[in-house]
Amino acid sequence: MSHPYPPIRDLLSQGDTVLICVHQFPDLDAIGSALACYWTFSQLGVTARIWVPDQDGVVFDFLPGASELSYSCPDGVFDSIWILDCSSLSRLPAEQKVARLVEEGLPLVNVDHHVDNQGFGSVNVLRPVSSVGELLSAWFLQEGLEINSKAAQCLYTAINFDTGRFSYSNVTQQTHAIVAELLNVGVDVAAITQAMYERFSLQDFEVMKMALDKVTVHPGSLFAYTIMPKKLPPHQVKVIDLIRQLDQVVVFVVFQELSANKVKVSMRSKSIFDVQQFAAKFGGGGHVRAAGVVLTGESDQVIPSFLAQLASDMSGER
Amino acid sequence: MSHPYPPIRDLLSQGDTVLICVHQFPDLDAIGSALACYWTFSQLGVTARIWVPDQDGVVFDFLPGASELSYSCPDGVFDSIWILDCSSLSRLPAEQKVARLVEEGLPLVNVDHHVDNQGFGSVNVLRPVSSVGELLSAWFLQEGLEINSKAAQCLYTAINFDTGRFSYSNVTQQTHAIVAELLNVGVDVAAITQAMYERFSLQDFEVMKMALDKVTVHPGSLFAYTIMPKKLPPHQVKVIDLIRQLDQVVVFVVFQELSANKVKVSMRSKSIFDVQQFAAKFGGGGHVRAAGVVLTGESDQVIPSFLAQLASDMSGER
Repeated sequence: MSHPYPPIRDLLSQGDTVLICVHQFPDLDAIGSALACYWTFSQLGVTARIWVPDQDGVVFDFLPGASELSYSCPDGVFDSIWILDCSSLSRLPAEQKVARLVEEGLPLVNVDHHVDNQGFGSVNVLRPVSSVGELLSAWFLQEGLEINSKAAQCLYTAINFDTGRFSYSNVTQQTHAIVAELLNVGVDVAAITQAMYERFSLQDFEVMKMALDKVTVHPGSLFAYTIMPKKLPPHQVKVIDLIRQLDQVVVFVVFQELSANKVKVSMRSKSIFDVQQFAAKFGGGGHVRAAGVVLTGESDQVIPSFLAQLASDMSGER
Repeated sequence: MSHPYPPIRDLLSQGDTVLICVHQFPDLDAIGSALACYWTFSQLGVTARIWVPDQDGVVFDFLPGASELSYSCPDGVFDSIWILDCSSLSRLPAEQKVARLVEEGLPLVNVDHHVDNQGFGSVNVLRPVSSVGELLSAWFLQEGLEINSKAAQCLYTAINFDTGRFSYSNVTQQTHAIVAELLNVGVDVAAITQAMYERFSLQDFEVMKMALDKVTVHPGSLFAYTIMPKKLPPHQVKVIDLIRQLDQVVVFVVFQELSANKVKVSMRSKSIFDVQQFAAKFGGGGHVRAAGVVLTGESDQVIPSFLAQLASDMSGER
């Protein structure tokens, strides 16, 4: 993953129309990156159309260009497809349509920061940096492309999101150096942070209370968990991020009842314990520090047995 | 506030002993900055002694050198006094002792980022940057002083704290450029962020539930407030930061009953409304976006009248 960036002007010609796709249920790194391409490509005389087939409540409306996002496949003829922040084509809900376009010989530019990206593009631009936002910023800067203030805001948001407000271990010297460049262009830091993190409703507060009310810490502080009921009001709060603020606990689990016999499980690990490996035992997956799985069965049966297995596995690691 | 930095080696001589003082109830900018001086000065052959006469539960123990903090006045003879992050000598609990030392002719180096600093030092190093951590970093870098990894961690913590995780409007290009330099030296970003923001106890969760339970939004969304009872378990959560996550609301108020006829009020404003001016009407003070006051009287009388005045003043601004 250490090749030099391919010259961006070789991938794009004046007058080109590019279809940009992102992974399903896109986050702010995916959408911020797509919109940054929109603004930066347009300065090269290239039109970007962004296809977001699905979304799950993440708010994008504060990003410059959000009205350009298309929730059905944009019409027209494309000169290339760019796929951002997507480690595998199977994470693309537009897979069939895109597969057809690629079969027809359309160039596919695959831009990603996930280390397990499968390199499915005709051009693959893969760097293990914090975010696609950071990758694109570095690329644009290296090419000497002008990043305008709209693109800078989108890139800043993307980086901020995928680094958890510059707090994860994926933050490097380059991350902050690039953010300094973006702020130089013009980014209203306070406004974006408020739009990203201070958009809760009173319903979010209700969900937070429910989550806090049910928090249980394993007697040996091995892990903490909470159980969320089936019927929740629409909310934006990430329950796992709420409970992971507990000190002295390494692993956090949120159970959410989805239906009569489905329980969604989200897991986080602050250190040591590999939740991806653990989730895999139940058919789930993810990353070492963040993983998930959907359990099948009655919640009052599958939850206790999941917790018993976790207690056993974590004790074994001590 | 735009003079060049005075050469640090002119202020310090090999073998010097420096007394470092910070404002009362110091925060992580003050303590991180003091410890950064400790580590950086020691490389110049200078001994720094840090006097922290009081503290109010802020946890410093994760900072390199925390065991060097002295909670009574250090013995010995000093060659100069450095006062960090303190806009006025009256915010120094050690005022009398320090005043005596200064009367005896001891040089006083006043290092601060508050715009209302009174310039009480014999040398004043005042810059309106995000934090004293940022100021010291810029100064050390300009002087070519080596910032070791312990100092880098302390400076990173100071900047992170006073910028609210790089989210306030005091964040500039320089802030991120300097953080990039610090990360280059070596900072465990994830470990420090966890130590700063993920140290809650189950008691904190209880306090959060109490706060969320009492949140009331003014019918016109002018402001939101919560009322905390007198008896709270020890906690670290900042209730005002919890409730300010509400969308569509500009001003936030937390009332806390202190005793039979004292109510502490904390205020925040996201934009437009000047809470300092408002708090001043009740004898309080602070900043445009963050202010406070202690009200005297029964809570069931002073709180409603405070809220009525707030509703009236905020309506007037519309």
